[in-house]
Amino acid sequence: MSKKLWQKNNLSENQHAALVEKFTIGRDAEFDLQLAKYDVLGNKAHVKMLATIGLIEESELPKILEELDHIAIQIEDGKFIIEEGIEDVHSQIEFQLTQKLGDIGKKIHSARSRNDQVLVDIKLFLKNEILEIKDLVKNLFQTLQKLSNQHQDKLIPGYTHFQIAMPSSFGLWFGAYAEALIDDLEMLLAAYKITNKNPLGSGAGYGSSFPINRTLTTELLEFETLNYNVVYAQMTRGKSEKTLATAIAAIAHTLSKFAYDVCLYMNQNFGFITFPDTFTTGSSIMPHKKNPDIFELIRGKCNILQGVPTELTLLTNNLPSGYHREMQLTKEVLFPAINTIKDCLYITEYTLNHIQVKDNILEDEKYQYLFSVENVNDLVLKGVSFRDAYVKVGQSIENQNFEANKNLQHTHEGSIGNLCNEEISQEFTKVFEKFK
Amino acid sequence: MSKKLWQKNNLSENQHAALVEKFTIGRDAEFDLQLAKYDVLGNKAHVKMLATIGLIEESELPKILEELDHIAIQIEDGKFIIEEGIEDVHSQIEFQLTQKLGDIGKKIHSARSRNDQVLVDIKLFLKNEILEIKDLVKNLFQTLQKLSNQHQDKLIPGYTHFQIAMPSSFGLWFGAYAEALIDDLEMLLAAYKITNKNPLGSGAGYGSSFPINRTLTTELLEFETLNYNVVYAQMTRGKSEKTLATAIAAIAHTLSKFAYDVCLYMNQNFGFITFPDTFTTGSSIMPHKKNPDIFELIRGKCNILQGVPTELTLLTNNLPSGYHREMQLTKEVLFPAINTIKDCLYITEYTLNHIQVKDNILEDEKYQYLFSVENVNDLVLKGVSFRDAYVKVGQSIENQNFEANKNLQHTHEGSIGNLCNEEISQEFTKVFEKFK
Amino acid sequence: MSKKLWQKNNLSENQHAALVEKFTIGRDAEFDLQLAKYDVLGNKAHVKMLATIGLIEESELPKILEELDHIAIQIEDGKFIIEEGIEDVHSQIEFQLTQKLGDIGKKIHSARSRNDQVLVDIKLFLKNEILEIKDLVKNLFQTLQKLSNQHQDKLIPGYTHFQIAMPSSFGLWFGAYAEALIDDLEMLLAAYKITNKNPLGSGAGYGSSFPINRTLTTELLEFETLNYNVVYAQMTRGKSEKTLATAIAAIAHTLSKFAYDVCLYMNQNFGFITFPDTFTTGSSIMPHKKNPDIFELIRGKCNILQGVPTELTLLTNNLPSGYHREMQLTKEVLFPAINTIKDCLYITEYTLNHIQVKDNILEDEKYQYLFSVENVNDLVLKGVSFRDAYVKVGQSIENQNFEANKNLQHTHEGSIGNLCNEEISQEFTKVFEKFK
Amino acid sequence: MSKKLWQKNNLSENQHAALVEKFTIGRDAEFDLQLAKYDVLGNKAHVKMLATIGLIEESELPKILEELDHIAIQIEDGKFIIEEGIEDVHSQIEFQLTQKLGDIGKKIHSARSRNDQVLVDIKLFLKNEILEIKDLVKNLFQTLQKLSNQHQDKLIPGYTHFQIAMPSSFGLWFGAYAEALIDDLEMLLAAYKITNKNPLGSGAGYGSSFPINRTLTTELLEFETLNYNVVYAQMTRGKSEKTLATAIAAIAHTLSKFAYDVCLYMNQNFGFITFPDTFTTGSSIMPHKKNPDIFELIRGKCNILQGVPTELTLLTNNLPSGYHREMQLTKEVLFPAINTIKDCLYITEYTLNHIQVKDNILEDEKYQYLFSVENVNDLVLKGVSFRDAYVKVGQSIENQNFEANKNLQHTHEGSIGNLCNEEISQEFTKVFEKFK
Repeated sequence: MSKKLWQKNNLSENQHAALVEKFTIGRDAEFDLQLAKYDVLGNKAHVKMLATIGLIEESELPKILEELDHIAIQIEDGKFIIEEGIEDVHSQIEFQLTQKLGDIGKKIHSARSRNDQVLVDIKLFLKNEILEIKDLVKNLFQTLQKLSNQHQDKLIPGYTHFQIAMPSSFGLWFGAYAEALIDDLEMLLAAYKITNKNPLGSGAGYGSSFPINRTLTTELLEFETLNYNVVYAQMTRGKSEKTLATAIAAIAHTLSKFAYDVCLYMNQNFGFITFPDTFTTGSSIMPHKKNPDIFELIRGKCNILQGVPTELTLLTNNLPSGYHREMQLTKEVLFPAINTIKDCLYITEYTLNHIQVKDNILEDEKYQYLFSVENVNDLVLKGVSFRDAYVKVGQSIENQNFEANKNLQHTHEGSIGNLCNEEISQEFTKVFEKFK
Repeated sequence: MSKKLWQKNNLSENQHAALVEKFTIGRDAEFDLQLAKYDVLGNKAHVKMLATIGLIEESELPKILEELDHIAIQIEDGKFIIEEGIEDVHSQIEFQLTQKLGDIGKKIHSARSRNDQVLVDIKLFLKNEILEIKDLVKNLFQTLQKLSNQHQDKLIPGYTHFQIAMPSSFGLWFGAYAEALIDDLEMLLAAYKITNKNPLGSGAGYGSSFPINRTLTTELLEFETLNYNVVYAQMTRGKSEKTLATAIAAIAHTLSKFAYDVCLYMNQNFGFITFPDTFTTGSSIMPHKKNPDIFELIRGKCNILQGVPTELTLLTNNLPSGYHREMQLTKEVLFPAINTIKDCLYITEYTLNHIQVKDNILEDEKYQYLFSVENVNDLVLKGVSFRDAYVKVGQSIENQNFEANKNLQHTHEGSIGNLCNEEISQEFTKVFEKFK
Repeated sequence: MSKKLWQKNNLSENQHAALVEKFTIGRDAEFDLQLAKYDVLGNKAHVKMLATIGLIEESELPKILEELDHIAIQIEDGKFIIEEGIEDVHSQIEFQLTQKLGDIGKKIHSARSRNDQVLVDIKLFLKNEILEIKDLVKNLFQTLQKLSNQHQDKLIPGYTHFQIAMPSSFGLWFGAYAEALIDDLEMLLAAYKITNKNPLGSGAGYGSSFPINRTLTTELLEFETLNYNVVYAQMTRGKSEKTLATAIAAIAHTLSKFAYDVCLYMNQNFGFITFPDTFTTGSSIMPHKKNPDIFELIRGKCNILQGVPTELTLLTNNLPSGYHREMQLTKEVLFPAINTIKDCLYITEYTLNHIQVKDNILEDEKYQYLFSVENVNDLVLKGVSFRDAYVKVGQSIENQNFEANKNLQHTHEGSIGNLCNEEISQEFTKVFEKFK
Repeated sequence: MSKKLWQKNNLSENQHAALVEKFTIGRDAEFDLQLAKYDVLGNKAHVKMLATIGLIEESELPKILEELDHIAIQIEDGKFIIEEGIEDVHSQIEFQLTQKLGDIGKKIHSARSRNDQVLVDIKLFLKNEILEIKDLVKNLFQTLQKLSNQHQDKLIPGYTHFQIAMPSSFGLWFGAYAEALIDDLEMLLAAYKITNKNPLGSGAGYGSSFPINRTLTTELLEFETLNYNVVYAQMTRGKSEKTLATAIAAIAHTLSKFAYDVCLYMNQNFGFITFPDTFTTGSSIMPHKKNPDIFELIRGKCNILQGVPTELTLLTNNLPSGYHREMQLTKEVLFPAINTIKDCLYITEYTLNHIQVKDNILEDEKYQYLFSVENVNDLVLKGVSFRDAYVKVGQSIENQNFEANKNLQHTHEGSIGNLCNEEISQEFTKVFEKFK
């Protein structure tokens, strides 16, 4: 808000208008541009439907469609702008139509309200973003699986209570995060299902007395089904956004946790992994440092993302049914979050392709006790009772003559020796293919 | 924590132990009892599997199973207790087995860790709770649809920006909240899918050197599939809980919003609905009051529930991979939340069966402008251009000779005159049937 | 992040650098410009101190100070920019110094780390913002008190359980929100106290082997005291920000609640207040509407603000002590929040100056029972026992011959007839004057 | 809620009442008992005031006071219970008074509403809890300072970006957390100030027509001042609670961070500290483990506590002014949180008294580069330019002939060699003494 306007209380009419507009419009234009493409799609479906019920002449339809296609190209080429004095992206498109087609252009607003127009734009936009996120998740999944297979024989310590516990491996570690993405994808699928419903025709939330055909626009826009009840259609404003925010938060949690492990494993007390210098930052004063800035920032950004559902809840909670103006603000909360998760998915995957993994980590003396369970189990499999075996191994540790049996024989599903990456990949694909 | 212990710093050994135990055990026992039933199920599957790989003799198996069935009956009958000095529900069951069967009883702990035992108990418990919540959602859905059909002809004002906007109806209002539950069920389904995977056999998060058969226990426990990767299996601790908390929060948001509307509509400035006296509270000093305590509390409880995912995020975030002790605390955050949503679903449905709906609300003078859009649309359908129609109606309002055309003709899908409750019911069933 | 870079995995070295830089730098520059002014202040104090311990020659000091003053003017005039290739605002200032003064300019970085430099900039910035917020709070407080006094005799219904309960007044309503700001100011004061401590000299969080004088810079920068312990000084990164976010959330809660009341009171079922047309928005299709967009947006923005502390908690929680790169991200969470609360405080105050308040609201028949308690109390004061009085009034309501005694005699502190606005103003001043 | 009641929809009248009561009363009784003591205090002040305005006879006053003192002793002795059929703690006290004193006992409810009675009880309770928390904070502060002094010469590595950076010390580490508590106490002070105001006399939020004397009860109850405006007094319900929750969250953040460090430093890759066996937990299968359960649970509990302000915000947000029933639920969110922070403060302090600190940590080869900055600064102080010094040290590291100068000379305020614990203690006292 302009500092100058603040300083006086007796504003001229123009200044007053500017102040109010500044406050109410806010950052809408910035986010609306992302919706332009979908506004054209919504318009096309709407006018085709209007033609079938006689609210647009058959002869007028091709002209409107042609003009909308022109605008679509303009948008694609980055040449579409919201002109001075035009309120928003929706008005701009109507303005251009009317400039070209005169009164015909105005007909596009029949049997529709700004509310359901914005709703359908947002749903189409979110659907598309969900599909893009899904693909980025897949890329990361594949890279993690590749690394899991590649480094499956390299052991690392496994911790519980952050205490050295039992042997783990890079195969398990990378593979675990790959499998985590399956469950995150399940959340994203729920968001997709919830978003993939047509609100167009719900008007301002109470429908219309025009004999519109919502089933037709549902087909034209390739939604799976309708938000039938018009009051509910309006209620989905904020709800679709929150559902996606929740799915993003789930992915973010996985990325954050992974980034946390990475920062830990790069710490010199662990020293399990490293990255080429171009992926780390030095210190102007400490030449020995390799700061993992990228992963610290992935962690930080993904942690902030986990707060987005709360912000949307606070914004939309305890409001009676019906549209409220602040619903517009969901855009400025969610849209940047979408970009951030896409960035983080991409950067994680890109950077992982350059990870350097240390060999022979477990040869360090301090890790020998990792194998104590193996020694106990060995004895059990040889017929010693568990209690006796445990006491025997315990004593050898106490007497400092414990000799680790490092010959691991983990064969069951999902263990060091049998990662089941192929089965995990199939599970991923099962969920992945439900998006359509 | 006992006040007396706090007062001194030089505790006896016993007092010290009591203090530490009190702090570390906390409210575990309280929640663990809910897991007892599932611990027996997990034990049965585990020993059957152990028998197939020779870690339990074939002759021993029936004895263990029989004893476990006895314990199951004890639990069912409410007679199972955690005895003094026994740490938790899992130890209690092992203790009873060993008391009866001697060394055979001890074998149940082979090739398993407390970690994957607790994990599998929790997953079985959550699965069951999800199915119960699903059924309560269905009951409420059906009641809302029944009320929507029953009151479909009764009009109420529809608001946007909380300003009187266009005609709505009780049919739309009840129906909207019914349809909302479909999307909430989609979230619950995601939670179900994520929970419906077998972690048993993941040990302490790093698997086992015993040649266990996790596919077999998966089938025996009727999980859809496995959490394959053992490191990931451990990571699902907290994640399953958060996913369910998220689904609960979605339902809670719907209930809270509905309760908000109810409190508003019971307010005397609206006066759209009421309930019999036994559902409201009077004032000791103001005899005219009918306080909607039940719905205020539904709203409040459901609003608190919407904060549960954040608590679980705060609890589990920024921890490196591997088990940490505070994971135990997820129980005391999530378990009461499960009970609360079940209470709220039930009470909402129960109370709704007694709602009293007012007739002829729109006859009040102040609602006449609701119909202005109808008048405009009428003219448009008669051939007048929208702009001319709008000006004409606008002038009639200004000149105070506006006559509302209250003959609503909303025919499209999901509108006042065509609620599509049947179609909405089919959509509900589609999601409902995916739980299995 | 540039779309093009995303499409390939084999980036040239330049493209790689651009990608990494884009991700790591993020929106820093945008926020850093707000710190420029304070960086100059921090620099001035630091070099003056360096001169006293011989790390800068006495003859060099005036030159550096003069050049810093030039830069300060540049910043003040909006002419200061971060040049291409310069990393951040701090480097830009050092760059300009070195360009002008050669090696002398470089000395400014002695005995200081980027970490404590950024820390001190942020604290100085936050201090100043807190003082600005405090003044905006005061303006709003005064306007609310003015309105409370002006409309003290105009009664409105008071609600409990959202049911009409007892008589209230515009005097009480405006006055209540004024008094609320006292407690919010108390939170802001805590943020101020916590921020008003000098971290300069803590280096990267582990101090310095140079014999610096932190007490001197504390005085020069007009901090109340030091963050003494250098490890703690570093820990305040994120903590100062969260404290301020918490205070902002408290103010936001008050504004949001007030805006909620405003939207409710503008609703036609209430109709207590209104605003001139230039403060409301009409509908393109419903000429009877006056949408309170400004207050809906104040409510929405302030509700989002209440989520900011959680985002900062998620960002900074569960990190071991010592600096982590994501601390930088606190700026992009908090800085916009500061602007938003300032906007909302200003707009609320500005708009309130044009509020129109309805007279004689309680003459509406539906509000007569508000006075039932008055009738009961009347009888009690005349000697009737409370129980008898209550029964008598209750019966008159039931028999529909209740006659409200509208002659209110509330005389105690803070009641309708004795608002105590003067005393409340004194309490406000007491807190206000503690900021220094 | 009883399972059996759930199973049928046709409840008998008694069952219906039981169901509704169960849902609406909830866990009130459990928390109300903590308020009993303060209800007596509130009652005493109220009746003394009533006597001054003639609503209680002078001769009746001593009888009521005497009886209230009896009840106070009952409460103190743990013998006070809420009898079957009595709604809550307030009714129970009135019931006992009336049993003993007949009609005189009933007079206590004159000129008061249940709302302001509960409000004043809660404020008195919170005030007292704040003072107890303050004392626990002080104990912990002193223990941390004691440890800081005791171990001031023992060096540990200091990390930035979780990379080894520069030398730190146990003196700095313990001292940092002590100093952190000063800022947390500042937040607690704000909560205290906000809570320390008398709401009694505000009735149901709209005052009273009785000529009560609120200034007198303010003095009698030793509040610093009044919540003057009666509408605002009611608004403080939820606000006081949230303010305290925020202060608790601040302390919890400090404890959680400290516990995080402790778990990290106990990890074998660090191995800086340990605790006697009675403070750690072993593994049934891995004899080498010392699990830091206490600190993991402190971390977990304190992380959950940081979500409490959000729950209270969700509960109280977007409600119009005036009392709403769900305000009662603030108790079940906040009261357990108060107990938890007290437990955690106490256990942290108690356990810290047994911490074992390792010597000579920095002798490990991997920490030698910690001293590189020291070497650079040495050269600078000897007159070498920073740039030359840096290059020289950098080369020695690269050539592997770097020799760490371990002779630290940190002398400035708050550094390794000059902890300023005395000054920090004085700052603590300054804030501590403002509670009164």
